[in-house]
Amino acid sequence: MNEQYPSRLLERAVGELSKLPGVGRRTALRLALHLLRQERAEAHALAESLHRLVDEVRFCKVCHNISDAETCDICANPLRDASTICVVENVRNVLSIENTGMYRGLYHVLGGVISPMDGVGPSQLEIDSLVERVAAGGVGEVILALNPTMEGDTTNFYISRKLAAAGAEVRLTTLARGISVGDELEYADEVTLGRSIVNRIELKQ
Amino acid sequence: MNEQYPSRLLERAVGELSKLPGVGRRTALRLALHLLRQERAEAHALAESLHRLVDEVRFCKVCHNISDAETCDICANPLRDASTICVVENVRNVLSIENTGMYRGLYHVLGGVISPMDGVGPSQLEIDSLVERVAAGGVGEVILALNPTMEGDTTNFYISRKLAAAGAEVRLTTLARGISVGDELEYADEVTLGRSIVNRIELKQ
Repeated sequence: MNEQYPSRLLERAVGELSKLPGVGRRTALRLALHLLRQERAEAHALAESLHRLVDEVRFCKVCHNISDAETCDICANPLRDASTICVVENVRNVLSIENTGMYRGLYHVLGGVISPMDGVGPSQLEIDSLVERVAAGGVGEVILALNPTMEGDTTNFYISRKLAAAGAEVRLTTLARGISVGDELEYADEVTLGRSIVNRIELKQ
Repeated sequence: MNEQYPSRLLERAVGELSKLPGVGRRTALRLALHLLRQERAEAHALAESLHRLVDEVRFCKVCHNISDAETCDICANPLRDASTICVVENVRNVLSIENTGMYRGLYHVLGGVISPMDGVGPSQLEIDSLVERVAAGGVGEVILALNPTMEGDTTNFYISRKLAAAGAEVRLTTLARGISVGDELEYADEVTLGRSIVNRIELKQ
């Protein structure tokens, strides 16, 4: 569909909006016309927030999470347990774990996983800075919370070897895998069910 | 879900993005993080296009379609048939009809339909300007291309009475209703099928 827009301004806005993931030209047009129907201030506030987001946002120098300051709120919080570091792939994973309210340690955002297919090597990830953090001492446990894919497993393996080579004596753990809370046995896939039997846990009595 | 964002800048961008229709907070976060991963220039181009869209876009003084100039490209085109005016509800309807490539006349964008339930009366729509356009002469046909809803029918009726009261002698037509091209009879709804029998057309032999 090569639509003719009645205005080049509209055409440009639709073009820019449709570069966003999951936004086609039809949706982009709907969004642009929506903004035209609202008060102008609405569209200005949106545009301004995007300008400021990309210009002013920073990344925590310790854990590389998104932050407004040099050090993020989590790293700067004295109530968090600084002896535990949870290694995640991206910022969204930090949000997911924070939303559980079950974790009081710190994070380390790798910015991806090792993936030769996508041309992502260890040097493009925040792995060296993780090893430095651990080698500096005071860390008792590193939780490797990457996705259970081949890339995630490769990255886990690479990190564990790097930590060992740096002589860091830490407990390495990973997230428990098993049947989701509320799931029925018969609908669980075989690999998950198999793992959940092998790694079965003691019932507290 | 009341998520804690690691940055107020991110939170503000997510808040603004999630005001868009069909964009929830989860999608907004995905869009914002996408923009952070791109070159900054991408986000600036998007923001700038939105600023300019709402500041600089104009509405054609003749047909009220979106336009970059005082008169839109369609109204300003001497090759279009100025004796036919197609009355539509909104700008998207103009695009839809233009994309068929089957219409060479002009348009008149009402900006909505009469809907007492939503508090939309005739005075909020571009009906008076339509009557003036027709009364000025030179118009032979007005095509009422509103949606076949109660509001659309009410608006059609109001317009036809207004035109009659203004003494405008024009042909009033509406879009043909019938079975969609390519549709099977058995799946057509009864009202559509009924209308298509009543308004059956002569086969050219």
